[in-house]
Amino acid sequence: MTETIRLHEYAPSGNCYKIRLTAALLGVPIERRHYDIVTGETRTPDFLAHVNANGRIPVLQLGDRFLPESNAACLWLAHGSPLIPTDRFDQADMMRWLFWEQYNHEPNIATVRYWRTVVGEAALDDLQKALLPGKVAAGKAALALMDDHLRGRRWLVGEGPTLADICLYAYTHVAGEGGFNLADYPSVASWLGRVARLPGHIAITD
Amino acid sequence: MTETIRLHEYAPSGNCYKIRLTAALLGVPIERRHYDIVTGETRTPDFLAHVNANGRIPVLQLGDRFLPESNAACLWLAHGSPLIPTDRFDQADMMRWLFWEQYNHEPNIATVRYWRTVVGEAALDDLQKALLPGKVAAGKAALALMDDHLRGRRWLVGEGPTLADICLYAYTHVAGEGGFNLADYPSVASWLGRVARLPGHIAITD
Repeated sequence: MTETIRLHEYAPSGNCYKIRLTAALLGVPIERRHYDIVTGETRTPDFLAHVNANGRIPVLQLGDRFLPESNAACLWLAHGSPLIPTDRFDQADMMRWLFWEQYNHEPNIATVRYWRTVVGEAALDDLQKALLPGKVAAGKAALALMDDHLRGRRWLVGEGPTLADICLYAYTHVAGEGGFNLADYPSVASWLGRVARLPGHIAITD
Repeated sequence: MTETIRLHEYAPSGNCYKIRLTAALLGVPIERRHYDIVTGETRTPDFLAHVNANGRIPVLQLGDRFLPESNAACLWLAHGSPLIPTDRFDQADMMRWLFWEQYNHEPNIATVRYWRTVVGEAALDDLQKALLPGKVAAGKAALALMDDHLRGRRWLVGEGPTLADICLYAYTHVAGEGGFNLADYPSVASWLGRVARLPGHIAITD
């Protein structure tokens, strides 16, 4: 592969970090282009026309082609690597964690972190304030589900690390920034340590 | 493969239907077990312990193993079939539509349909009532994004039908039940017709 891989991103986003982490673990160099999502840099006519009609980052650019959706970008990067199981059930089971992450984990844990650390709780609008308690409860339920699953397991799927671990690590390891107490989930905490010790691991601030 | 494939489901759910549709298009027989989600049959201790700790359907049962998340179930069924492109970019691009479906399409279009047809708009709680206008607007934006993408294209990804088409067809073709007007999205309407004419297609009511 000779074409440039460029990540259109907002660096503190866990969705963007999971792509950088996947690339780092695989030893794949990527270029990075930063956008300020707070000031709407991903909603400009140029961005919508050429990068992502959905107005969101991350987007992985491969030559002149653009791939939105964080987990799809990780799957592209990890194509044919040991981070994707070849066993049919394990591969589908890994996928279920990726879909669960986007449906049950990210909209709660990531949104609460964003609201509390970037927007600021006092600056939330009335609807966000009304949604916050439910999102906190759903975030705790997501962490509890992971903790139950990881009790007695080293990795989310099968016997080794997969994209399920990488993609769920991204927002889980910074859940404390949103007010979640990871000490309440000891199996999750141990698992976070295992992911952090994978060769090639980089921090979200790297 | 000799083990029984059993779908734990609530038949009117588009998430369940997409699995039945994938199986039908591939000629794979599946057993079906019905749950009444309105009366909480997927939140019983037995269901949580043995079928899905997340308390949701659909779940695809493969022998004694359970696979939650609708799109993961479709991916398991379609493993190695023409419904999943082998080209690395196209495969990832198909995946991005599946993630987009669960993040931007289903939480809006499916939820509005459920609230209006099952719960009833008058029976919504205050938070649901406050969320409804935003979900209607986001649902319309999702349909508009699909319409723009499908203008001049026959399928969402590449030159033939993939799981992206099957999975997005499920809730799109019944969006009218939620009050969305599909006539406003002519390229979506034409594409729905193409999916409906695929050999082996079954209706959501079948």
